[in-house]
Amino acid sequence: MTAPHSSLTAALQQVDTDLDAALDRLLVLLAIPSISTDPAYQADCRKAADWLVDDLTSLGFTASTRDTPGHPMVVARHDPQDGVERPHILFYGHYDVQPVDPLALWTNDPFDPKIEETPKGKVIRGRGASDDKGQLMTFLEACRAWKKANGALPFNLTIFLEGEEESGSPSLIPFMQENAKELTADLALICDTGLYGADTPAIVTMLRGMYKTEITVTGPDKDLHSGMYGGPAMNPIRVLTKILGRLHDDEGRVAIPGFYDDVKPIPQDMHAQWEALGFDGEAFLREVGLSVPAGEKERSALEQIWSRPTAEINGIWGGYTGAGFKTVLPSKADAKLSFRLVPGQDPAKIGAAFNAWFRAQMPADCSVTFARENGSPAGEMNIAQPAFEAAREALTDEWGTPAAFVGCGGSIPIAGHFGTVLGMDAMLIGFAREDDAIHSPNEKYDVECFHKGVRSWVRVLDRIGG
Amino acid sequence: MTAPHSSLTAALQQVDTDLDAALDRLLVLLAIPSISTDPAYQADCRKAADWLVDDLTSLGFTASTRDTPGHPMVVARHDPQDGVERPHILFYGHYDVQPVDPLALWTNDPFDPKIEETPKGKVIRGRGASDDKGQLMTFLEACRAWKKANGALPFNLTIFLEGEEESGSPSLIPFMQENAKELTADLALICDTGLYGADTPAIVTMLRGMYKTEITVTGPDKDLHSGMYGGPAMNPIRVLTKILGRLHDDEGRVAIPGFYDDVKPIPQDMHAQWEALGFDGEAFLREVGLSVPAGEKERSALEQIWSRPTAEINGIWGGYTGAGFKTVLPSKADAKLSFRLVPGQDPAKIGAAFNAWFRAQMPADCSVTFARENGSPAGEMNIAQPAFEAAREALTDEWGTPAAFVGCGGSIPIAGHFGTVLGMDAMLIGFAREDDAIHSPNEKYDVECFHKGVRSWVRVLDRIGG
Repeated sequence: MTAPHSSLTAALQQVDTDLDAALDRLLVLLAIPSISTDPAYQADCRKAADWLVDDLTSLGFTASTRDTPGHPMVVARHDPQDGVERPHILFYGHYDVQPVDPLALWTNDPFDPKIEETPKGKVIRGRGASDDKGQLMTFLEACRAWKKANGALPFNLTIFLEGEEESGSPSLIPFMQENAKELTADLALICDTGLYGADTPAIVTMLRGMYKTEITVTGPDKDLHSGMYGGPAMNPIRVLTKILGRLHDDEGRVAIPGFYDDVKPIPQDMHAQWEALGFDGEAFLREVGLSVPAGEKERSALEQIWSRPTAEINGIWGGYTGAGFKTVLPSKADAKLSFRLVPGQDPAKIGAAFNAWFRAQMPADCSVTFARENGSPAGEMNIAQPAFEAAREALTDEWGTPAAFVGCGGSIPIAGHFGTVLGMDAMLIGFAREDDAIHSPNEKYDVECFHKGVRSWVRVLDRIGG
Repeated sequence: MTAPHSSLTAALQQVDTDLDAALDRLLVLLAIPSISTDPAYQADCRKAADWLVDDLTSLGFTASTRDTPGHPMVVARHDPQDGVERPHILFYGHYDVQPVDPLALWTNDPFDPKIEETPKGKVIRGRGASDDKGQLMTFLEACRAWKKANGALPFNLTIFLEGEEESGSPSLIPFMQENAKELTADLALICDTGLYGADTPAIVTMLRGMYKTEITVTGPDKDLHSGMYGGPAMNPIRVLTKILGRLHDDEGRVAIPGFYDDVKPIPQDMHAQWEALGFDGEAFLREVGLSVPAGEKERSALEQIWSRPTAEINGIWGGYTGAGFKTVLPSKADAKLSFRLVPGQDPAKIGAAFNAWFRAQMPADCSVTFARENGSPAGEMNIAQPAFEAAREALTDEWGTPAAFVGCGGSIPIAGHFGTVLGMDAMLIGFAREDDAIHSPNEKYDVECFHKGVRSWVRVLDRIGG
């Protein structure tokens, strides 16, 4: 722990003093039902964007909404204008939220947010409390406190807030391309991730990529009656299960030739740091009713999630699936597959290897098509950026627990877009907890996470700008 | 070919003379939309039954409808009452028909039947023309012609017509049990099958049985996100495809231990007779877009259909099957399987072997349930019954082509019920052609099949009763 100096101390005190007012502001934003995927809430999305522009303007930012074919972007700029050469930081968050159904499972109106006392402490309850309005406001409140305590932010700052993250970000890449000069900074900060466990602050440094494909196997040219044709006629469900049944070997490895060829090994120190986190793989599986790790046998569950590629059948269908029986021998059978990819793997190459492997096992008189193939490579943050070590120290100071460089089993496309579209490094820091129920009924954000989140950003501002 | 004698000659002449009137009668019956599965047609089913009772009464039968919880049965009795000891024959057919959808694919109203000229000859077009109103009327018309020519039928006859065959025959077994004395005869004749090829008369002597089961594999206790859990958490679709993918070995054999243990070999002469039919397995597959026989490699396609058991996946589903992608790792995956069984195989034993084989391959932390398990054994007719040879000779006389004892890949439960419920032998003779489009739009029955069908039954009456 480093000794706090006056501007940091003052800003942290300001955060503590202002907490109730900050929570009130968040509740106002949470009350706007900015569900981006449902056209019925289009005006509400704009209302949320306008509210943010007003708030940022009150903080001294030059802020505006920017129209897109979908929901507006919010872009705000703050320059200290003191003549000192400073780094330029961009902060990203999103103001749109997930739909709320099934509404019946909510204990109260998802857009009438409340601070609730619970056995585990105070929570902010409402749609978007954690994902992502509560998280993005941690950064805005940190800026507010810093400015109130110290007058100016310690670096040039662009705030970039999206309103389509929960509906696939259709306008994001075109907007980035059209506004590349304005948006390109030295580093992007993204607040849309979580703590590691309940209390370990975390910086995501690896995100798995994805390759998706949809398979259709065709056997006979029409559905057949199994009494008439059962025996001599090949059933495409038999073909599909036979081939997909070989997707993993008995050691839990993906059996496609060359699948692991380009996987970059995890550096020894990163690996050691992960081991030190003491992840309880058994408990992790027990929580969802399982007990036998299904991935590569020689890898821990944490390694499997953060650093190893997968092949999953996300959907399968064919033949008669209604009530009762129909002894049909169908013409077609389908499956949807996705592969989680890790640094080094090329989605197109993985797709080609899969297709070749699948085709090689097809009976001569059946055919296969692959549709909707698309992919995005894994993300690997540039932890050589000094900001990473600075942020790690800042987070460690706030939480009293060493901050971890962690992986993430899922994909957060925005991190990759900053790299591929704007050539910027990105750093993902967030304060969500696993029980926040994001995308589910009764979403919440712990007041502790919000409070410490604001304080964490104050410390990051200080470390990076200082 | 045997020399016709006077009563046979007279009856056959009567058939030819009366053909147009017989067709007119059939068109009246076909115009009644007796769709048994749709409650909207309940009155029409009764109307068809009443029409048949009236027709049978006019033929001198003691005929009546018999109420059931579903549609009525028609039972009619004819005894020559000439003091001579004669065999008692029962004839079975069904007056109900399949639904007609998709109606748009019919070239005319399915219940406004017509005699049509086609490039292949005259056809009777309408729902039920072949299945089974046209076929059952071949027998009634044969009785009519015989009686008109000769005064009395040559044996005691019960006609038993069902109105629920196309909707699973729910009332059949209880009705047979309650009326066992009345319905038990020396032999049942069933007219609901087809010719072999276009012109070879056929008597079905083997029917495959069936065992059905529905499998549910459960992995995690809820649907999971593949970014979060992909790798360590077992996906039940992976389990299902892995196990079902091993259902057949590379030789096309079903891989369940003991599956073939009880299969009775086909007698050498039956086998030789099948070979002599010159079945073109390649053409059979080519018609449905296939070319590689999928069953046991050492067996011909005909053997595979008529005399070998199968395992088919009739339906499979799990995970996300809608448009686009959802990277879900589902909690459950399901499949519906059916096994076609042959003489010697016990459905319950096959079910137990399958379940044991499946369970033995399950991961320790996943579970499987088997539901809706039910089966019926294969049917094997008693061809030692002299009536079989008599009928074969009668059919050979009419068609000018040696009649064949054939197998049938499907199941015709009624044949088994006569054996298991009433202890009777059954003989299946029918005149449908493969292109009759039964259960499909534009169902037809060739006028030639109807005409020769009536004549065939006259010859069978003569041979069996004579």
